[in-house]
Amino acid sequence: MVTAHAGEAGPTAAGRASVDLLGVLAYGELSAFDRLAEDARSAPTLSGRAALSAMAAAEIGHFRLIEEHLGGLGVTVEDAMLPFVGTWNRYHASTAPRSWLESLVKAYLGDGLAADFYREVGGWLPGATGELVQRVLADTGHSAFAEREVHKACESNPQVRDRLALWGRRLLGEAVTQAQHVVAERDELAEFIVSGSGDLSGIATLLKRLQSNHGKRMAKLGLN
Amino acid sequence: MVTAHAGEAGPTAAGRASVDLLGVLAYGELSAFDRLAEDARSAPTLSGRAALSAMAAAEIGHFRLIEEHLGGLGVTVEDAMLPFVGTWNRYHASTAPRSWLESLVKAYLGDGLAADFYREVGGWLPGATGELVQRVLADTGHSAFAEREVHKACESNPQVRDRLALWGRRLLGEAVTQAQHVVAERDELAEFIVSGSGDLSGIATLLKRLQSNHGKRMAKLGLN
Repeated sequence: MVTAHAGEAGPTAAGRASVDLLGVLAYGELSAFDRLAEDARSAPTLSGRAALSAMAAAEIGHFRLIEEHLGGLGVTVEDAMLPFVGTWNRYHASTAPRSWLESLVKAYLGDGLAADFYREVGGWLPGATGELVQRVLADTGHSAFAEREVHKACESNPQVRDRLALWGRRLLGEAVTQAQHVVAERDELAEFIVSGSGDLSGIATLLKRLQSNHGKRMAKLGLN
Repeated sequence: MVTAHAGEAGPTAAGRASVDLLGVLAYGELSAFDRLAEDARSAPTLSGRAALSAMAAAEIGHFRLIEEHLGGLGVTVEDAMLPFVGTWNRYHASTAPRSWLESLVKAYLGDGLAADFYREVGGWLPGATGELVQRVLADTGHSAFAEREVHKACESNPQVRDRLALWGRRLLGEAVTQAQHVVAERDELAEFIVSGSGDLSGIATLLKRLQSNHGKRMAKLGLN
């Protein structure tokens, strides 16, 4: 059985969509861990390295919550993640930071975007899964360091600011591109998102909200 | 003030030794995080990658406890770590795993050795610092995966077992070498360890206990 919705005939479409969603999120956390840990290595200071490492470690905390929850649904996290490994890896390959400041911007905006996404979909999910998403969401807030450092670097150098602003916009674009690939390949997940957000225009509204919040975070970093 | 022991004339020798010890441990955690995250990348399976990533994340949990504690003593974790960065980096450079199984053996034995060391010195430290070390210690046990995988690989292939057994012994040798460098360079820390373990023969006994536990862990992995 995949979820409590599943009958003897196998998991329902809603059940499969939940597992897909958790799989996307789980590999998102695991791959973010990997990238943040790699980026931490290029930190110019020990405190920067510790801050990015702590952000990486927080991803694993989320990952384990999802893993545990999937276990309760009778699904291994590996099976749930497998369809989404390629997409996430492409996202990270296409957004490999070329500097420490790019790493910080990616970490900060990525964290925020993930939190927004969790918040949006959390309400559409059945009981325990919806609660899980809220729990994961509550455990953010490791990114004050990034905010401070990027803001400082931008204040003193408009050229740095302009380049990082382009970078920040590109990150959202790449994320949306990869999300569209995922949705195109996974019918139940697509249907789940359409029905969760209301209809096709609901998706457009959702995207607008994500973009608007992304813009606010860019402003917090001084990138506008 | 460095510790509650410190008078107006500055930190006492015991206070400086405590800070040194916490600095060694903090950078030990941070560098272990870095190496485990790097090794996780070479995992042959997603579950292996998740298991090693979780071990890495646990190091950051410990790191943050130490950071917080040092903050309470009026010392930044960066300042406390700085004298030990070179030694730890040399340890990891001289023990870079050449295979996934070597990574697992290093993670498992390193975790155990660290726990033993925390246990030994925890009792010598004043109140709150001693308790901190006990808290860090209690949060281990992410290494069952490594135990299972290495044991399986060794059972079916004596050549693999023999090579990993040599590797496991070398890891302890390198750790002892680097520990000796640290002690040679930090007088207060050396004195703290001598007085904590009783006397010079106490240190020999402590080393024997660490070796004996290391041997038991090797046996648990099937490396004997």
